[in-house]
Amino acid sequence: MLRFDSDYMETAHPRILQKLTEINFDKNTSYGFDVYTESAKDKIRKECNCPDALVYFLIGGTQTNKVAIDALIEGYEAVICASTGHIATHETGAIESCGHKVITLEGENGKLMPETLEGYMQSFYADKNHEHSAQPGLVYISFPTEYGTIYSRAELESLRKICDSYSLRLYVDGARLGYGLMSPVCDITLPELARLADGFYIGGTKVGAMLGEALVIPNPDSVKKLFVQIKRHGALLAKGWVAGVQFDTLFTDGLYFEISKNAIDNAMYLRDELKNLGYEMFLDSPTNQQFVVVDDEKLDLIKDKVGYGFWHKLDGRTVIRFATSWATEKSQVDELIDLLG
Amino acid sequence: MLRFDSDYMETAHPRILQKLTEINFDKNTSYGFDVYTESAKDKIRKECNCPDALVYFLIGGTQTNKVAIDALIEGYEAVICASTGHIATHETGAIESCGHKVITLEGENGKLMPETLEGYMQSFYADKNHEHSAQPGLVYISFPTEYGTIYSRAELESLRKICDSYSLRLYVDGARLGYGLMSPVCDITLPELARLADGFYIGGTKVGAMLGEALVIPNPDSVKKLFVQIKRHGALLAKGWVAGVQFDTLFTDGLYFEISKNAIDNAMYLRDELKNLGYEMFLDSPTNQQFVVVDDEKLDLIKDKVGYGFWHKLDGRTVIRFATSWATEKSQVDELIDLLG
Amino acid sequence: MLRFDSDYMETAHPRILQKLTEINFDKNTSYGFDVYTESAKDKIRKECNCPDALVYFLIGGTQTNKVAIDALIEGYEAVICASTGHIATHETGAIESCGHKVITLEGENGKLMPETLEGYMQSFYADKNHEHSAQPGLVYISFPTEYGTIYSRAELESLRKICDSYSLRLYVDGARLGYGLMSPVCDITLPELARLADGFYIGGTKVGAMLGEALVIPNPDSVKKLFVQIKRHGALLAKGWVAGVQFDTLFTDGLYFEISKNAIDNAMYLRDELKNLGYEMFLDSPTNQQFVVVDDEKLDLIKDKVGYGFWHKLDGRTVIRFATSWATEKSQVDELIDLLG
Amino acid sequence: MLRFDSDYMETAHPRILQKLTEINFDKNTSYGFDVYTESAKDKIRKECNCPDALVYFLIGGTQTNKVAIDALIEGYEAVICASTGHIATHETGAIESCGHKVITLEGENGKLMPETLEGYMQSFYADKNHEHSAQPGLVYISFPTEYGTIYSRAELESLRKICDSYSLRLYVDGARLGYGLMSPVCDITLPELARLADGFYIGGTKVGAMLGEALVIPNPDSVKKLFVQIKRHGALLAKGWVAGVQFDTLFTDGLYFEISKNAIDNAMYLRDELKNLGYEMFLDSPTNQQFVVVDDEKLDLIKDKVGYGFWHKLDGRTVIRFATSWATEKSQVDELIDLLG
Repeated sequence: MLRFDSDYMETAHPRILQKLTEINFDKNTSYGFDVYTESAKDKIRKECNCPDALVYFLIGGTQTNKVAIDALIEGYEAVICASTGHIATHETGAIESCGHKVITLEGENGKLMPETLEGYMQSFYADKNHEHSAQPGLVYISFPTEYGTIYSRAELESLRKICDSYSLRLYVDGARLGYGLMSPVCDITLPELARLADGFYIGGTKVGAMLGEALVIPNPDSVKKLFVQIKRHGALLAKGWVAGVQFDTLFTDGLYFEISKNAIDNAMYLRDELKNLGYEMFLDSPTNQQFVVVDDEKLDLIKDKVGYGFWHKLDGRTVIRFATSWATEKSQVDELIDLLG
Repeated sequence: MLRFDSDYMETAHPRILQKLTEINFDKNTSYGFDVYTESAKDKIRKECNCPDALVYFLIGGTQTNKVAIDALIEGYEAVICASTGHIATHETGAIESCGHKVITLEGENGKLMPETLEGYMQSFYADKNHEHSAQPGLVYISFPTEYGTIYSRAELESLRKICDSYSLRLYVDGARLGYGLMSPVCDITLPELARLADGFYIGGTKVGAMLGEALVIPNPDSVKKLFVQIKRHGALLAKGWVAGVQFDTLFTDGLYFEISKNAIDNAMYLRDELKNLGYEMFLDSPTNQQFVVVDDEKLDLIKDKVGYGFWHKLDGRTVIRFATSWATEKSQVDELIDLLG
Repeated sequence: MLRFDSDYMETAHPRILQKLTEINFDKNTSYGFDVYTESAKDKIRKECNCPDALVYFLIGGTQTNKVAIDALIEGYEAVICASTGHIATHETGAIESCGHKVITLEGENGKLMPETLEGYMQSFYADKNHEHSAQPGLVYISFPTEYGTIYSRAELESLRKICDSYSLRLYVDGARLGYGLMSPVCDITLPELARLADGFYIGGTKVGAMLGEALVIPNPDSVKKLFVQIKRHGALLAKGWVAGVQFDTLFTDGLYFEISKNAIDNAMYLRDELKNLGYEMFLDSPTNQQFVVVDDEKLDLIKDKVGYGFWHKLDGRTVIRFATSWATEKSQVDELIDLLG
Repeated sequence: MLRFDSDYMETAHPRILQKLTEINFDKNTSYGFDVYTESAKDKIRKECNCPDALVYFLIGGTQTNKVAIDALIEGYEAVICASTGHIATHETGAIESCGHKVITLEGENGKLMPETLEGYMQSFYADKNHEHSAQPGLVYISFPTEYGTIYSRAELESLRKICDSYSLRLYVDGARLGYGLMSPVCDITLPELARLADGFYIGGTKVGAMLGEALVIPNPDSVKKLFVQIKRHGALLAKGWVAGVQFDTLFTDGLYFEISKNAIDNAMYLRDELKNLGYEMFLDSPTNQQFVVVDDEKLDLIKDKVGYGFWHKLDGRTVIRFATSWATEKSQVDELIDLLG
């Protein structure tokens, strides 16, 4: 059976398991003070062009979002995101479990548009009773979004400007960051992202790591005692090097970007071929998640032969998602195209 | 200056201050174990026809909502309400501060309609990944709503039925409960409300009390150690009798209902007269809050002569709110009508 | 029956109820923006010699402690107090409910001694793994303590100095503050307390108010958006003037201090007479709570004739507490002395 | 340099990395619904003789303690543990971050003795104001304790009995569970532990796994929606099989117990030899952590040649800890003995 269900079905890039195997019986210092973690942090700081950035390795997007957001805002502050934002929909209220309201605004194909944010903030402060409402403290965006779309540099600059004018922090969920940065339409770089955001994470779980995400706080003054806060959230790894080795490997010789590009190349190829075959794409995604509209007949035909993500019904047809990953091979995409042909 | 800004501008029904003055130097048992509190609880249980109900006196709507909701649901459960619900808009994220997500659904003139709730719950469970989303545990409605509207008995029965089929609890914010029950179009009684809801409160702050709300949990098995939970929320009164005396007074000889009716009579009179004068009502409110559409010229004329609540702009005009209360006198309404005539 | 159970059995100083009755039908601005609240805040700022202090009126010690401590520290910070501290023993874990650990140190007759605090902080930082432990952020003391004892100015200066050297905030629970300040052995004043503490409250519930405590934050920069935080804790009064009138009355013509002194005079008289009668005092309390050791025979004799607080057993005898209050009359103390004679 | 600092310095048992490498490019179902996780759960249920047990794989002791305790008790309930309990000392207030007070009682060499617990609970309920105190809901013990000691079956039975009589749940932190069960003095088995506890975890991080702990809830009715709660705590692994493979391997052919025994054999050998050399043991530990008292001269001699844990000063000498692990080789212990000889 072909599997395009998601981008986290394989275990890890082989170099990672190889390295872990090599050092298996070495005796490492705990809690992230080992040499691999230090090296990985340095490499990430360099890639981000942020020599002072705080970098910590956590496991899982929900955990990382929770720790980062809780550290970046005051206890009484709220988070703003698009109504499709992962923290608003599929994290079981984890942000609220830390006491923070999540305020959702209507997005466009997964993106929170600058004008929507500006409009909300204007009306918020226009209300003379706004001290009776939850106080916005941070804007959460995902890059790429849950719909595979990405923000342009101009949009990010606009969001940043609005955040500055209303004292909001800007946080970027980068579960699939590599797939965004390697998109052919992407016009920003990692250092630019690091300049624009108060915090973001470089997703590993979906991009070649076994498990792990690299939380980056470009300006260390943005948070207090992050080590303590990570531990308090139950997110500190005793064996920090297990994550450190992974990110050290991924950020050696551009591996992270190289394998991200593989997913994108395969996704773009898939998209083009599906269009050639006459398929309607639900939206125009320039990253590794492709949303296709299929009719019932076709769905019946493929459903036992290929794994995909069910999205929703649309005019009697169905929107399904195919996700490529760092591990996808072109031959698998060809098989999928054949099947759908 | 005439004041129709809100229904909590006067202090208390005179009988309350009189009684407190009478017993001022009596020595009372603390923490709500005094005779006045016991008597008030009994009277409320009788009015609600719930001999086993838990009744506690708290101060303020936000506090009462927070304590009650937190006690009625599991730590990981979420609350559903209309997008205009007070807990969603004007309680600074107090529910989220206890860890509970507030899920908002589109309402109609402040009401959460049964079909909207049913639709949401159906689609929630249709999603096979629903265990990745916040778990609805309770439906919050206000009676009357923030727009002065009230639910019919049929609507409440439907909401209850939906709650039963999805294991949701039903909670009613009764900040202005008296004004709802005394509305000419109201077709439910206090015992019926107590039968339908898992918890509700009888608002005192806006209905004749100096300060205080009576939280009623009809079935004591719905919550655990409520006394402890109230204390933990910082809501337990050392001098419980100060609230007890108030509710004992309000529930003696039907005072609560009698003074509620005064607000309604004056509001209905005001509404009819405004309609006669050709004013457009923003919506049809059968309770003590009346929302009127006024043009700029008129607004200029009255703005220094009468206190009102600003609601929002509408097609170049303004929606303002006039609220009557238990203490409103007909002569004041007549003055207002003269002013607007 | 004589009642010396506690200092919160009577309702309020008569001038308070009189004033509330006078203004009963006035229409007041809500949420603490009324003239009485403003006046009360000004008077308190003057008494404290803190022209910029934030002053808010809340109801109840647990609520006030919770709001103040949560506002003064970071989400991940912990509180240090004596093991007899009210927040550690009789507030049902309300501080922990906001996420803050309460670290208890051994006290002396209810007091947290400077050397104990210093020792703890030294050993905390001597542990190289201290980032794995809860981070102390605030020292909580009560003045007077739960045992009626008070800190000397020298002790408070020492605590302040230690707090400064370890970046700890100092918070004073003043549930019975008046009784502390009026003690014959007290050597500090309200302005001195305001200079030494980052936050404290002037208790009203036990000192002449119907209900209410005045939270004072001498330096407004110590907290952020306190109004919002109060509301989020469910502690904002819609009818703020009900508290405002009380504190305005208590801080007019020195009433708060005058009635506090009444409790102290009666307590000192009681203490001296009990000593003359040969009673052993459990500890030397210079305030309104007196702890007496009585044998079983005596206890049998009085238990149906006088209300007292049970403390604990001691060598087969019993330690009981008699509390005088602002409302205690000398004749009542005389009756108690007769009974015990 | 010899390293006896801790038992989590090596990465993983080789069979684990081997298996992960083998299946590296297989496409697995996410969120723990893969075949390895299912198999591991089954094996653990069998080892525990609990066919209905809930088994989930989490990462790290703090995370597992937090999730389990928060799931086993009501929001307002508190936890009781020995004052040396890990949750009380080295988890940065993680339990309190979920709103639960941690009540510490004096232990004996790390153990909470049944009579201490019974005494506390008796005095708790003897206090007629106990509803003003935090409500004990769960007893936390560690097995082995932070001092390497273990409870006898009789002690565990007594704790269970006390828990039953006061409606307390019993939770066991098994970070080093294998090392406890393989101790020569241990008189309980895994099924017995599962019968006695409401929840416990089988530590992997310190016992052969790369990272991972198996949370076991013997009776599934003890908790509600554990999957949701795990996710909400940020503890759900998208790639659940990474943990599943590890525990499936550890619970195949008794590997977990076999490698645990290796640590114990080496620790017992070390202990006996140290005693022969005339060293004083700080306490009698029958597990893999050995606490030795050394004088300054000796400490100077070894400090650059061997890694150890610093415990505390004792009469001018120093208590240090040597920890063996699943990966310790006898030759390494011999080297250590030589060094100390």
